[in-house]
Amino acid sequence: MAKPYVIGIDMGGTNTAFGIVDARGNVIASDSIKTAKHSNIDDYIDELYTEINRIIVAADAEDKINGIGIGAPNANYYTGIIEDGVNLPWPTPIPLADLISKKFGIPCIITNDANAAAIGEMTYGAARGMKDFIMITLGTGVGSGIVINGQMVYGHDGFAGELGHVIMKRNNGRMCGCGRTGCLEAYCSATGVARTAREFLEIRSDESKLRELDIDSITSKDVFDAAMAGDKLAKEIFDYTGTILGEALADFTTFSSPEAFIIFGGLAKSGDLIMKPVREAFDKNVLPIFKGKAKILFSEMKEADAAILGASALGWEVKDA
Amino acid sequence: MAKPYVIGIDMGGTNTAFGIVDARGNVIASDSIKTAKHSNIDDYIDELYTEINRIIVAADAEDKINGIGIGAPNANYYTGIIEDGVNLPWPTPIPLADLISKKFGIPCIITNDANAAAIGEMTYGAARGMKDFIMITLGTGVGSGIVINGQMVYGHDGFAGELGHVIMKRNNGRMCGCGRTGCLEAYCSATGVARTAREFLEIRSDESKLRELDIDSITSKDVFDAAMAGDKLAKEIFDYTGTILGEALADFTTFSSPEAFIIFGGLAKSGDLIMKPVREAFDKNVLPIFKGKAKILFSEMKEADAAILGASALGWEVKDA
Repeated sequence: MAKPYVIGIDMGGTNTAFGIVDARGNVIASDSIKTAKHSNIDDYIDELYTEINRIIVAADAEDKINGIGIGAPNANYYTGIIEDGVNLPWPTPIPLADLISKKFGIPCIITNDANAAAIGEMTYGAARGMKDFIMITLGTGVGSGIVINGQMVYGHDGFAGELGHVIMKRNNGRMCGCGRTGCLEAYCSATGVARTAREFLEIRSDESKLRELDIDSITSKDVFDAAMAGDKLAKEIFDYTGTILGEALADFTTFSSPEAFIIFGGLAKSGDLIMKPVREAFDKNVLPIFKGKAKILFSEMKEADAAILGASALGWEVKDA
Repeated sequence: MAKPYVIGIDMGGTNTAFGIVDARGNVIASDSIKTAKHSNIDDYIDELYTEINRIIVAADAEDKINGIGIGAPNANYYTGIIEDGVNLPWPTPIPLADLISKKFGIPCIITNDANAAAIGEMTYGAARGMKDFIMITLGTGVGSGIVINGQMVYGHDGFAGELGHVIMKRNNGRMCGCGRTGCLEAYCSATGVARTAREFLEIRSDESKLRELDIDSITSKDVFDAAMAGDKLAKEIFDYTGTILGEALADFTTFSSPEAFIIFGGLAKSGDLIMKPVREAFDKNVLPIFKGKAKILFSEMKEADAAILGASALGWEVKDA
């Protein structure tokens, strides 16, 4: 019989959040550590072990943990390995599932952060009851988790669902972190919004509050604040971003015809500023046979919770060691 | 217990091919009728009934048919309805599965032609043993059938897998039959190749055998023949076509990371003329994490067989009426 709790770990480049979750999806204890603090992966695992054990003991949950699930960048569900962890301070590949399960003596399953968020959304959020949906995470990058027939899509190698790297500008596109040009991520991430702001400010001459800021350190938050204060150029930056995202979602629909797209992450907080152009571009560009079908929704989960809960759900999938 | 035979029907705009198939995938009898001959759907169903019964009787297979599977344009697996049959001579929607199962007294399941081809390829062709692959059919249009985790992807509404309508040219793209511009199908179908030929001949001034032909009636076959005879411009038309298809396959990989793409249909017969630029563009454009992984293969099936066999496989899925 399954033990009553699971551990969910959300491993990001800066912070690692973790929590103890019960079978009903309650986070009964949680905390976080700094990922980047440790230049050595073993030191990181040691601190994680110490801190997670601390909350396990405090919650009287010793010997009651069924499994550990981790959402981490570029984590491979099949192999348990982080094969190319661009934002992590350690050399790859990292056999993370093995390192964790050996240290804790508890079975561990990993997947990438966007997939973990999708699992969280399906189990506890806006995608409850949906068998076909696509989660789009708009953060520093653009991630995605695809669910078809109620199953997470991992692909033949464990790396499916990299929709942030679909090419949206085939000519003269922006450089992307992946080494190619024109990727969705280069436009629709928080970083992409800041880049669009810099581009607009350089190319155009109209008035904007954004001109009062140091152009090289403008963030998507600055653009959001300016747009909320009525700045026309800032609003157009969101229109530009949302239009590209809407065009992308229209293309994605031809693939799996999802019931909904769930938008998640920092940029999703921009609300109608981003959602209005997304929906308009989607309706304008989607193939007629799909018109009016797919919903475009915001995530219903708090960001931290979604990641921990989604990752923790993998802790129920583990088989006995 | 299942009866020993199934019927597979491949319904195209011009011809409808059908066959009796046994559990090992042998087509034990087959024939075809003209789809477009009948201006009334009921007359078409009547002729199909007469002709299929003829081969059933000849094969001594009366009362031995487990089910009927049909591959037809825009056919919806879930509803059994052809909801928008652009190339068919009858008004849509057509409740095809119902019409057939009532007429024959045998349960019937339908799906679109590209999905049927994918099922055929998975059961009897180049995708045997694969759980994740994408079938691309290059015919008058560009169709696709997507298999993930060993399951056909139908999407929430039954219309998933319309990859021919992913936008490849976002600006100044060609008009597509779907009413939008820049679709993959407008470039990489047989019609697309002929359009590229006309475009190249108009815009360029270099020598080509194709200039001896009536420009308005050039076909992809003409371009193929010229290329095989060493015509440089004709070869460049295939390079142009294959490059766009390779770029598209690179994007599709980010979705489901398939083990292979299977290329099927008339244009696939162009062999290396199309495959070489496809592979080159794919390798050049695919996200680094997927480099060198997905195979790009030609279908191993005869076109007619694949469609009948693929459709017939649905005849094993039927439940007792």
